[in-house]
Amino acid sequence: MLWPLLLTVQVALSAPATHLVTNLPGVPSYSFQIYSGYLPIPNSNGRELHYVFITSQNKPASDPVVLWLNGGPGCSSMEGAFMENGPFVFSETNNTMFTNPYSWNRIANMLYFESPAGVGYSVMGSIINNSTNDTQTASDNLIALQYWYTLFPEYKQNSFYISGESYAGVYIPYLASYILYYNAKNPTTAIPIKGILVGNPVTDWTVDADSAWPAFLYWHQLIDDSIYFPWVNLNCSLLWPSDPACEPLGDSMYDLFTGVNYYDIYRECIPEQPMSNHKRRWMTENLQGISNCVPNNALTLYLNNPKVRNALHINTTLGAWSECADLDYYTDMRGSIFLYPSLISTPNFLINIYSGDTDSCVATEGTRTWINNLGMTTNVTWSEWYLDQQVAGMYTRYGTNFRFNTIRGAGHMCIQWMPAQGFMMFQYFLQAADLPSTP
Amino acid sequence: MLWPLLLTVQVALSAPATHLVTNLPGVPSYSFQIYSGYLPIPNSNGRELHYVFITSQNKPASDPVVLWLNGGPGCSSMEGAFMENGPFVFSETNNTMFTNPYSWNRIANMLYFESPAGVGYSVMGSIINNSTNDTQTASDNLIALQYWYTLFPEYKQNSFYISGESYAGVYIPYLASYILYYNAKNPTTAIPIKGILVGNPVTDWTVDADSAWPAFLYWHQLIDDSIYFPWVNLNCSLLWPSDPACEPLGDSMYDLFTGVNYYDIYRECIPEQPMSNHKRRWMTENLQGISNCVPNNALTLYLNNPKVRNALHINTTLGAWSECADLDYYTDMRGSIFLYPSLISTPNFLINIYSGDTDSCVATEGTRTWINNLGMTTNVTWSEWYLDQQVAGMYTRYGTNFRFNTIRGAGHMCIQWMPAQGFMMFQYFLQAADLPSTP
Repeated sequence: MLWPLLLTVQVALSAPATHLVTNLPGVPSYSFQIYSGYLPIPNSNGRELHYVFITSQNKPASDPVVLWLNGGPGCSSMEGAFMENGPFVFSETNNTMFTNPYSWNRIANMLYFESPAGVGYSVMGSIINNSTNDTQTASDNLIALQYWYTLFPEYKQNSFYISGESYAGVYIPYLASYILYYNAKNPTTAIPIKGILVGNPVTDWTVDADSAWPAFLYWHQLIDDSIYFPWVNLNCSLLWPSDPACEPLGDSMYDLFTGVNYYDIYRECIPEQPMSNHKRRWMTENLQGISNCVPNNALTLYLNNPKVRNALHINTTLGAWSECADLDYYTDMRGSIFLYPSLISTPNFLINIYSGDTDSCVATEGTRTWINNLGMTTNVTWSEWYLDQQVAGMYTRYGTNFRFNTIRGAGHMCIQWMPAQGFMMFQYFLQAADLPSTP
Repeated sequence: MLWPLLLTVQVALSAPATHLVTNLPGVPSYSFQIYSGYLPIPNSNGRELHYVFITSQNKPASDPVVLWLNGGPGCSSMEGAFMENGPFVFSETNNTMFTNPYSWNRIANMLYFESPAGVGYSVMGSIINNSTNDTQTASDNLIALQYWYTLFPEYKQNSFYISGESYAGVYIPYLASYILYYNAKNPTTAIPIKGILVGNPVTDWTVDADSAWPAFLYWHQLIDDSIYFPWVNLNCSLLWPSDPACEPLGDSMYDLFTGVNYYDIYRECIPEQPMSNHKRRWMTENLQGISNCVPNNALTLYLNNPKVRNALHINTTLGAWSECADLDYYTDMRGSIFLYPSLISTPNFLINIYSGDTDSCVATEGTRTWINNLGMTTNVTWSEWYLDQQVAGMYTRYGTNFRFNTIRGAGHMCIQWMPAQGFMMFQYFLQAADLPSTP
């Protein structure tokens, strides 16, 4: 049902020269290339993914291609490009754009997809496409990627990696699995995927949400014994039906720390709305709970600037860009954990999971739990890793190819908030090297 | 045995004018008074406590007198005076002295004791005094305080409070208990004590160290499952003999995060020694474990300056000042928890416990546990408190007079690192007011 689509990829009708970004407003002069354009999904009632591609500052011809995906589901990877690991990023506090000394394109060709279709400046096409899910997203991403290679065939020999954060913890293992499956069937046109790098990832809802989230709140002093112990003793669940007494406990948990930055509990909350309107939503999609403590006003303003839209070759029929789309997204409640055994057993396939350890959204504890549950052999024991004489986090390696590291004192958007640590991790990941355990 | 000493307080032989500090080097001009001098302990083989007294910037005649004590045991309260809540404090990072906008003497007359005798510039007297303990310290502190009132009788009507942090969690309830006991016996010469304010306090070793410390490390990602779960399952103890298999687990815990600032795990480590020599000590006095990530070089240099010594009227026969003295201190392993039921039942006696929640030394979790174990009635439920539109921490009140609050993202030296939050808490404490639960 899905796979036949993979073989219908069209040859690109336009040369990437028409996608070259030549006059991006507000950015300093630069010596690499930026491309922006559309990747159509055939037979999809009009879906097209918008991509941005930024060539490496180092050796574009041989440096890897790294796809970055933001989460949501439904949030735009322009966040990654213009707030996190791109060459020019916006400051959260004063809205200015600055050159990012830790841009990942210092050592890699960076590719950003606005995915699924309907997110950001990607084209949803027919309204029926508003309803989507994990497998549809993976399929579209693969098709878009194949189309992208037809635009940029010169990168077909470079190593390819997928990176991202949050709900991309689902997107990425799915896309990687689809690519590996495709490669096995089509060795001559294989995509040269080498690994994945995934931060604060949604992976296994039963440990990411149930258990990890209430435990995180409790052990970081956001809720007290009067909520936590009954919750544990009643074996309450955030996701599945449980004792009716759980509901008020759950409400209390959500209500309790409305003023705390949900994505980094020790970070300032910079509300987009007055603090009095600032409430997290109690909802079934609980890990999507939005604390509006992380402003993106500057990014939104910028991307909606007609000159920017024009420079990025944005489809003129589209409406305004917004950070996250209100898709009718069907989440497979198995998360992505069921895909890992196969990924782990893929020879030479590099997996690096990382976790900012002060994030309450996808708390490190849940990530540790699902990794432990995989039952791998520890080959580098839990240890400090260092950057600039300071402990950047903890690091461990299982087998040869599965790495896990924390970024100490960082929240959900690690790369945005700890860019130096994030860049170092990225660098070591691409080298398949252990993070340094001494200062 | 102890109490007769309390009645032998001498009338001060010298007027406080001779204790007035008139030419303290390096400080800007100021409009309050600073006194520094000695408070002799009679019949003690020569013990004398050094004190610093800084009058209020507000209404010294009616503002409360607040004693501040640092911990250790054996560390000097000059840390409090010149690094934490005094009017002029040293920067950790660039060693300069600056005016502290959050000095507690903005609203209180601040008194600092270097206690026990032998600490800092206090006089130990005979070497036999090197060996001391909690009751001796409490007795000396009370006698010193009574002597201080003979020097400053004009403050006898002002409210009196005791504040401090860390091992002062033992000193303070002891001294308060001794004062209340003395007051009951001597109503006409009662010391006008109104309450205590104690931060990251050593209170109940069984919960502060055992249980809270390993749990804190685990839930803040400093140790992993391979250490923590065996530790819990074997019911290991840091303090008491336990399964021999616990020892290597304990060693691993101590060894694992040598580079992390033990007093605030998300704070930079500014080592006094090269990081390669930087190891925590594995020892029985485990909560004293010194991570040298918090420099006090500037303070040490300053207090050893002959002009500063002279200005502070320091005993010329004494050697160099150092942050902590190597006393032979006998710790009552009951901590101070056994003193709380009596303090709590004292009418109108205000108790405010606070805890910087990123401190691994005396972790908030242990403090919450001993407070819960006291079985008080909760009258203000666990809730956020605010400063400048930001969540400053969590707050709860038991009965009328027992307050507990966290300071969010602050370590062991809350007042030094979160001075605005610390000052606000101090202000509300003196007013016996609940911390504000809305922005």
